[in-house]
Amino acid sequence: MNLLTNNEAFQAYAICSAILVLKMFLSAVYTGMQRSSSQGYVNPEDADRFGKQGTQASPTETPAVARALRIQRNDLENIPAFFAIGLVYVLSGASAFGAAVYCWTFTIARIGHTLSYMRELQPARSLLFTVAALANIGMAVNVIWKNL
Amino acid sequence: MNLLTNNEAFQAYAICSAILVLKMFLSAVYTGMQRSSSQGYVNPEDADRFGKQGTQASPTETPAVARALRIQRNDLENIPAFFAIGLVYVLSGASAFGAAVYCWTFTIARIGHTLSYMRELQPARSLLFTVAALANIGMAVNVIWKNL
Amino acid sequence: MNLLTNNEAFQAYAICSAILVLKMFLSAVYTGMQRSSSQGYVNPEDADRFGKQGTQASPTETPAVARALRIQRNDLENIPAFFAIGLVYVLSGASAFGAAVYCWTFTIARIGHTLSYMRELQPARSLLFTVAALANIGMAVNVIWKNL
Repeated sequence: MNLLTNNEAFQAYAICSAILVLKMFLSAVYTGMQRSSSQGYVNPEDADRFGKQGTQASPTETPAVARALRIQRNDLENIPAFFAIGLVYVLSGASAFGAAVYCWTFTIARIGHTLSYMRELQPARSLLFTVAALANIGMAVNVIWKNL
Repeated sequence: MNLLTNNEAFQAYAICSAILVLKMFLSAVYTGMQRSSSQGYVNPEDADRFGKQGTQASPTETPAVARALRIQRNDLENIPAFFAIGLVYVLSGASAFGAAVYCWTFTIARIGHTLSYMRELQPARSLLFTVAALANIGMAVNVIWKNL
Repeated sequence: MNLLTNNEAFQAYAICSAILVLKMFLSAVYTGMQRSSSQGYVNPEDADRFGKQGTQASPTETPAVARALRIQRNDLENIPAFFAIGLVYVLSGASAFGAAVYCWTFTIARIGHTLSYMRELQPARSLLFTVAALANIGMAVNVIWKNL
C-alpha cells in the first residue's frame, strides 16, 4: 500500500487540516460559552438542563450567540472547501513549496478571521476572508489547469 | 494506479463516510417533512407550489422546522470535519484497528446525536456531541503528531 | 510517490470539485452583493464600514440577504458531502465513465439549483436538488457495496 506518508506537500495539508479541525471545535466551544454567559437557549431541554433556575428558552438567539454562530457559519462556507481543494491539489502533484504556501496562508488567514470577527475588527476581517478565499481560488484554478 | 482498494483502514473510513452522507440526506428529508407538516415555508414560490391552498410564506421558521435545521446545522459543524480528518488520518498510515475505532465511534455518536436532538433528550445529546468531537480531536492530534 | 495524476476518474472529480469551490465563492459574493444593495448589515462594524452614511445594523436579515444565505446553506448541506463521497468513490476504484457521470451530474445540477433558487423557480429547484442528491446517494451505495 502506497500511502502519502513522507510526501511533504501532503504533510503541510495534513497538519493544516488538523489545525482547522481543532479550530472549528474551539469555535463551537466559544459559541457554547456565549450561550452560557448570555443564558440564551433556543432548545427548551437545554434551558432546563443548563440554564439557571427558571431560565426559559427563546426562539431568537442572543446577540452574543448570534455573532458566535455567524463566525462558525462563515467557517462552514470556507473551510470544507479548503479540505476538498487542498487535498485534490496535493493529489494532483503539488510541489512541497506550493502546498505549504497555500495551506498555511489559508489556515493563518482563517484563524485571523475568527479573531477579528470576535473582536469586531473591520476591515481586518474582510481582508482576511479575502486572503483565505484567494488561497482556495488559486488551488482551484491550478487543479483545473492540471487535470484538464 | 495504486488506489486504496483492500486497505482496511480506508474501508472503515469509506463505509462510515457513505453512511454519514446517507444520514445527512435523511436529515434533509426530515426537515422537509417538518416543513410540510407545519406548513412552514419561507420561500413564496415554495408556499405556492407545496403549501395547502392559501398558504402564505413566513420570514420566520416554525419551531419544528427550526429544530430540524439546527440538527442539520450541527451536522455541518462536525461531519465535514470528520470527512477531512478521517481521510487524512487514513492516508497518514492509520492502522485498521485505529481507523475502525475512530470512524465507527464518530458515526454511531452522530447518529445518536441526531436521534436525541429529534427527541429533545438532554444530557444524551451533549454527551454524544462530545464523544463524536473527541473522535475528531483524537484523529487531528494523531495527524499532527505523525506529519510533523 | 504514486499520486492520482493521470487517473481519469480522479481528473473528473478534481475538475468538478474545483468548479464547485469557485461556485461556492461566487455564492458568497452574491450574498455580499445582496447585502450591499439592500443595505442589510447585522454586524455593527460592517454597517459602520460598508453601509451608507447613517446605516444602522439590524438583527434580522433583509429578505434578499436571507434568500442568498439559504442558497449558501443549501450548498453546505450538499457540496461537502459530494467532496467526501466523490473522492472516496474514486479511491475505491471507480471507472472513468462512472466518475464522469456522477461528478458532472452533481456539479451541473447544483449550479442549476443555485440559479433556480436565485430566480425563485419551482419545481425546477426541487428537481435539481433531487438529481444532485441522487448522485451522492448513488456514490454512497456504491462505496458501501465495494468496501464491505
